[in-house]
Amino acid sequence: MNDTYDVIVIGAGPTGENVAGRAVRGGLSTVVVESELVGGECSYWACMPSKALLRPVAAAAAANHLRGVTGARLDAAQVLKRRDSFAHDWKDDRQVAWLESAHVDLVRGPGRITGERRVKVGDTELTARQAVVVATGTRAVVPPVLAEVTPWTSREATSSHGVPGRLAIVGGGVVGCEMAAAWQALGARVTLLARGGLLDRLPRFAGDMVAQGLRAAGADVRLGVSVTKAARSSGTVTLMLDDGTTVEADEVLAATGRAPRTDDIGLESVGLTPGSWLDVDETMRVRTGDAPAGSNDDDWDTSDWMYAAGDVNHLALLTHMGKYQGRICGDAIAARARGGEPTVTDRSSKTCVPQVIFTLPEVAAVGLTDEQARDAGLRTRVVEYDLGNVAGASLLRDDYTGKAQMVVDEDRTTIVGVTLAGPGTGELIHAATVAVAGEVPLDKLWHAVPSYPTVSEIWLRLLETYGL
Amino acid sequence: MNDTYDVIVIGAGPTGENVAGRAVRGGLSTVVVESELVGGECSYWACMPSKALLRPVAAAAAANHLRGVTGARLDAAQVLKRRDSFAHDWKDDRQVAWLESAHVDLVRGPGRITGERRVKVGDTELTARQAVVVATGTRAVVPPVLAEVTPWTSREATSSHGVPGRLAIVGGGVVGCEMAAAWQALGARVTLLARGGLLDRLPRFAGDMVAQGLRAAGADVRLGVSVTKAARSSGTVTLMLDDGTTVEADEVLAATGRAPRTDDIGLESVGLTPGSWLDVDETMRVRTGDAPAGSNDDDWDTSDWMYAAGDVNHLALLTHMGKYQGRICGDAIAARARGGEPTVTDRSSKTCVPQVIFTLPEVAAVGLTDEQARDAGLRTRVVEYDLGNVAGASLLRDDYTGKAQMVVDEDRTTIVGVTLAGPGTGELIHAATVAVAGEVPLDKLWHAVPSYPTVSEIWLRLLETYGL
Repeated sequence: MNDTYDVIVIGAGPTGENVAGRAVRGGLSTVVVESELVGGECSYWACMPSKALLRPVAAAAAANHLRGVTGARLDAAQVLKRRDSFAHDWKDDRQVAWLESAHVDLVRGPGRITGERRVKVGDTELTARQAVVVATGTRAVVPPVLAEVTPWTSREATSSHGVPGRLAIVGGGVVGCEMAAAWQALGARVTLLARGGLLDRLPRFAGDMVAQGLRAAGADVRLGVSVTKAARSSGTVTLMLDDGTTVEADEVLAATGRAPRTDDIGLESVGLTPGSWLDVDETMRVRTGDAPAGSNDDDWDTSDWMYAAGDVNHLALLTHMGKYQGRICGDAIAARARGGEPTVTDRSSKTCVPQVIFTLPEVAAVGLTDEQARDAGLRTRVVEYDLGNVAGASLLRDDYTGKAQMVVDEDRTTIVGVTLAGPGTGELIHAATVAVAGEVPLDKLWHAVPSYPTVSEIWLRLLETYGL
Repeated sequence: MNDTYDVIVIGAGPTGENVAGRAVRGGLSTVVVESELVGGECSYWACMPSKALLRPVAAAAAANHLRGVTGARLDAAQVLKRRDSFAHDWKDDRQVAWLESAHVDLVRGPGRITGERRVKVGDTELTARQAVVVATGTRAVVPPVLAEVTPWTSREATSSHGVPGRLAIVGGGVVGCEMAAAWQALGARVTLLARGGLLDRLPRFAGDMVAQGLRAAGADVRLGVSVTKAARSSGTVTLMLDDGTTVEADEVLAATGRAPRTDDIGLESVGLTPGSWLDVDETMRVRTGDAPAGSNDDDWDTSDWMYAAGDVNHLALLTHMGKYQGRICGDAIAARARGGEPTVTDRSSKTCVPQVIFTLPEVAAVGLTDEQARDAGLRTRVVEYDLGNVAGASLLRDDYTGKAQMVVDEDRTTIVGVTLAGPGTGELIHAATVAVAGEVPLDKLWHAVPSYPTVSEIWLRLLETYGL
């Protein structure tokens, strides 16, 4: 079988779906190639099931921390069933139906690039008139020390049909922290092991509050430790740590990082290295050859037919950023197919990436930390405020504790980064994202009055603390 | 006793406190005059107690609408006690302590203006070197037809120590809707009577959803009706309606509007009309004389010593807008005392007023409705999206229903208004407020990527629906 399309997308996760949707909207015939489930990691083993596990936990906690509400209890079996329904019982009929409704063709199987504009899927040879887009995402990396005990990865942690008795989690990043919060609340006895602190890419208070929340929930959080040996014996895993202590568990979750799913997609056929992240320009075209000396990416050669969007380009490993890049990528391919150049290019993947971590308390951040901003040469000022002192927060929860930090570019007097930690902060961060992406000067933000008494009044307090 | 200050503020509600705090920060000696409790209506009989009543109701509802959480119940007595603590048991020690810490003097008693820059409080004659600020707020208006049954006003509705058996509420505005939601959930059998629909100043879907929510909770919502007669007999109030039906209740709440508390503050001594709203310029200086012909407010005379901030100027009857005006007012007085003119003036009270209505579901809005925008001569386009179709909303609650509407100024391609109705929308509106106040063009908003899977992804859906 031999088929020709304008666009071939390898990977039918949210990124690939957005590329395809936008390419079709731009008048291009499009096929997506998927070796597993249409909908990708996010739909079945990441965002959706993990948040389906965490939302009831957060809602019960919110109710139980309010005088006047009593008796809210979690029913773990029902939480797992709710999670199953959000993962559509790991069937992709709905997503396939969406592809059909969007006039996107689907070829199932592993896609391998076999040369310029050519992709092979089993016996099917696909040819692209315009572009091949790699949107294959990432997989969990299992460190060698854990490999022999066949640990859970994020997939098993989000899809498990039972609550483990004792769960050891290795890794203090987002996956480790979220799964620790979920499974501890659902009845597991969780031990969380991190080499450094928790959520180390964010300002320290965020990880500190998450550690505090996990410990208050009964989890054993051990920071600054590494696993030196792991062994499984009659169902029990024993982890030996570099501080001389051991941890016993029924299951171990390896939450120690992600690797690009590019090892078996034929990169070698076009002179790229299998297993590598794919560098891209601001329209998601893949960079070829070596990086130029100095930092001027404009001198870097780009492919005229190969694109990479989402996790696989290593810019921002988050579903919403993959979707954003997917929209830009699909539009760019369509613009070039018409002989033009895209007018909308990626402005956010490096400097305005929002993220919500659905722990208890939640953590939400966007933009640059102070350290990142200074490394980028900005003259910054950091403003912090105790979220618990906002009237809306004290109403939200009797024992509200939280913190907000904003990083101001003093030369432009705009906000370049915000970090929030506290219950309910997940929906607060978008106001910051608008301020950062919109480059709204502080003296204009002053007229964006937050409603009283909402937690959003943190904005007034931050600006007052700045000196407005 | 005869005292001279730079600034005299009549009214120690949130607005007056902000005027005073900013005036002192500007180096001015300041006294506030308060006839009731320092902290004002908001602290004891409005925002704080009403939201203290409503927050447990919302938290219990959130828990009970999630598969996997069971058993959340309201304990009305404890909810009332929590409310008491948020109202500080109607004692103002804490607020008095704040005034002291801010170096603001306090004179208790009713303040009456007796001439230019002069205010009398009992036997005390106060003189202002710079300014007298009227920040006396509003009181509930009881319509004549209800007067003889001595109804509750917002004060009794927010401070009641018991749950009435049957509560009739007259008025479908914010107070009526919020109190209906609170007391129905706490055990009263509520009948809500509105002359039109509910929340008539907002797009219709908002009031429709609130009516639906109240009815689902068991309240009797009757729209398009007026009370023609009211009588109380052995504890029971009977209301006769213009549709021929009657309502019996144990208590009646008159939630039919507000009037300025200016009837007894000596306005006549300076040529103004007692009981009138006080028109102001964009620095909160009171307009004197008659309004100029046409619409050019710049030709309107303003007082050089008398200011009015908060509810009393009728611009936006909301605590946060009063505080905003208070900051502008205090800063303006300080700037003029230094011989300058203020650099920050009111930009939001007419076109960027946010409001959250803590009903079930919540309603949140900012800026202009389509009708208001067209009346202002803008060429608009309205975009709507079903909030329940956002992944983050379906995670938040099993049966999420809600709606979002954005009004775009097509000439500037900026957002001039947003209305949201649905659970949890109260904290979503600030992103809209930032977009409206920041005048962020849609093509820049496109790069403010909302986090997946949060309810804030409504932003992506609105922009996609617009055509981006």
